[in-house]
Amino acid sequence: MSEVVQKATLASKAASPLASITTEDKNKALLMMADALIEQADAIITANSEDIERGRADGTSESLLDRLRLDTKRVGDIAEGLRQIVELNDPIGEVLEIIERPNGLHIEKIRVPIGVIGMIYEARPNVTVDAAGLALKTGNAIVLRGGSAALSSNRKIVEVLHSALEQSAIPADALQLIEDSDRASVNELMRLNGLIDVIIPRGGSSLIQNVVQNSTVPVIETGAGICHTFVDASALTSMVDEIAINAKVQRPSVCNSMETLLVHADYDTAAFVQLAEQLREQYKVEIRGCSATLERLPWATLATEQDYATEYNDYILNVKIVGSLDEALQHIATYSTKHSECIVTENESHAARFMQEVDAAAVYHNASTRFTDGFEFGFGAEIGISTQKLHARGPMGLPALTSTKYKIYGNGQVRG
Amino acid sequence: MSEVVQKATLASKAASPLASITTEDKNKALLMMADALIEQADAIITANSEDIERGRADGTSESLLDRLRLDTKRVGDIAEGLRQIVELNDPIGEVLEIIERPNGLHIEKIRVPIGVIGMIYEARPNVTVDAAGLALKTGNAIVLRGGSAALSSNRKIVEVLHSALEQSAIPADALQLIEDSDRASVNELMRLNGLIDVIIPRGGSSLIQNVVQNSTVPVIETGAGICHTFVDASALTSMVDEIAINAKVQRPSVCNSMETLLVHADYDTAAFVQLAEQLREQYKVEIRGCSATLERLPWATLATEQDYATEYNDYILNVKIVGSLDEALQHIATYSTKHSECIVTENESHAARFMQEVDAAAVYHNASTRFTDGFEFGFGAEIGISTQKLHARGPMGLPALTSTKYKIYGNGQVRG
Repeated sequence: MSEVVQKATLASKAASPLASITTEDKNKALLMMADALIEQADAIITANSEDIERGRADGTSESLLDRLRLDTKRVGDIAEGLRQIVELNDPIGEVLEIIERPNGLHIEKIRVPIGVIGMIYEARPNVTVDAAGLALKTGNAIVLRGGSAALSSNRKIVEVLHSALEQSAIPADALQLIEDSDRASVNELMRLNGLIDVIIPRGGSSLIQNVVQNSTVPVIETGAGICHTFVDASALTSMVDEIAINAKVQRPSVCNSMETLLVHADYDTAAFVQLAEQLREQYKVEIRGCSATLERLPWATLATEQDYATEYNDYILNVKIVGSLDEALQHIATYSTKHSECIVTENESHAARFMQEVDAAAVYHNASTRFTDGFEFGFGAEIGISTQKLHARGPMGLPALTSTKYKIYGNGQVRG
Repeated sequence: MSEVVQKATLASKAASPLASITTEDKNKALLMMADALIEQADAIITANSEDIERGRADGTSESLLDRLRLDTKRVGDIAEGLRQIVELNDPIGEVLEIIERPNGLHIEKIRVPIGVIGMIYEARPNVTVDAAGLALKTGNAIVLRGGSAALSSNRKIVEVLHSALEQSAIPADALQLIEDSDRASVNELMRLNGLIDVIIPRGGSSLIQNVVQNSTVPVIETGAGICHTFVDASALTSMVDEIAINAKVQRPSVCNSMETLLVHADYDTAAFVQLAEQLREQYKVEIRGCSATLERLPWATLATEQDYATEYNDYILNVKIVGSLDEALQHIATYSTKHSECIVTENESHAARFMQEVDAAAVYHNASTRFTDGFEFGFGAEIGISTQKLHARGPMGLPALTSTKYKIYGNGQVRG
């Protein structure tokens, strides 16, 4: 039996008792996990330094090494993340619906854990702890397959978390780490129907597409964000400046940052040029535009079709001048990844059409797309942002990690 | 461009305007579809007789031919099904959640259509109409790929429905039928990510497994039912008889009928033997049992491991004598397909454990598993019964055909 099958089987067996553990006991276990991380911070940082050294020897970029690196402060933040999960409402057991039937059947729709979650992600040790915390809080077992560049860190972290779980009501087997760094172990994990109930990939587009294309287990796609901001003719220039700058540069590397600015041809040209120059000069943003953009910004480069279809996650911005709301809607329908889209306008009927017609997880009127985030919506920690339409869409709080079950109570009813 | 890509593209283009059509206009279109089916019933029955003749020539079984056959009464029932969908509440546009954030953002979570549904099913022309009605009522476009044995019927039905849609507010392109009867068209349909948002397979286990194993589009699995009834020591004998007989023979061919009866060793042996004999003599049920069963029913045959793992959909029943509730729970955990499971007991603590611990879409105390059905739960027509844990579980009413979208209203908010 392979490591993957063996560990998935252990997780699956642990899922059943885990489903009935009280909120209090789950919270105690999470606090013990947080305490253990703090107590063992030095050992974790030592293991992490092995990953960092190996990464540096392999020529890993400084920005990736930075995402991988743990220090005392970061371990503290990760432990604090677990404590925040303790504060969240436990959705398990919630009665979502009660139906009384004419034949006397009493039906209750109840929130239950999904079962076993498979998590496939990159070399980010914080995800190991976050995902474990969110899964266990919702009564789910979890099988983690993190990027091999973080293997020493993940192995030590899971060892520390196991030592905490062994003192708790949660079976330690509910948390499993796949250590096999061969790619085949990823493929095996995502075809374990019957043992794994859902696969959640988190990472870059190639990781996610590999899962979407090859998983036979149901997937929750946490996908790419090619997010647009449409500046309508009537938009207030000061609001446009704030929203566009925030959406582009507040954190360009994340999925809900802006990749393309659509500007109505009748929007104040001087204000647009000033905004573009500020983005270029103050924030070092490279601008790629359509030919009408280049008439206004002779220094910009010409955007290609491919540019409009690219998630840069960087200080690069596409600009397109559009003649109408319809042209903006059409552009978005063509290039959007259905993540987060924004209209800046004072025209209420334009806003209403945009909010209704744009097909995306989050649609904004007069606010930055950067708000698509579990904390910003008031959900607390999130396992990711879903860009698919089934099960969960947008920021996924704890309820996204649950399923439902109908309990039907009778006194001998049979079907006629 | 293949037929599948061409038709999926047309459906995808129609999905966008369809999402904004009012409930009144959608209901009018459904009524026009129903009227058109009645008016064109003769032409539909003529087309159907071609399928029947071809099927008979191909040696199709009488029971399959019966499922395929249309007559005036059946066409009338199918049209009546559309009228019943008109009566159901339209979930689209429903505000599921309103969040007011401290920064003034106003967030609404709204029910929206999924987009384009791909439906893969067997030679049952009624599914063509049901699925079209449920999809269009919820603002979804639909691409149908029915069994090739019903192609003449489906082609005529869709032609009739198109003629009705052309008089309505719904774009006729929102309903597409794949006529290519090659299996490759099924495989193509379920890999059209970006054009198709969900695949719903309906049919036998090999059809469903083919979709689960090969679809890259998200799937809602409407799966098999190996359903158990556990007769506890304290169960009332009259209630056991009614529930067991109903669960087994009221309609053995469906997924929520019983395949295995688990009987506590302390349950009244005489009552058990009488029930088994009644099933055998009055209802012609073949019984396959464990060795303890055979001690009580010397005429039964010995059940194999494979029998316990089989969905018979027929007049065959497995019986196992168990020593305890735990043994029953263990058997169910091993062999259940997580569809519908029942305990008959007067022991409240046993009932509570069973209802909590059994992992299934529907868990019953003292009622027949045959109630797992959209109509019986009060949901009206259903697109199927989901046996997966994501998105929808159990009978799927109209809300199962919806997604959600967050609308965020601001006045210039940016993220700090």
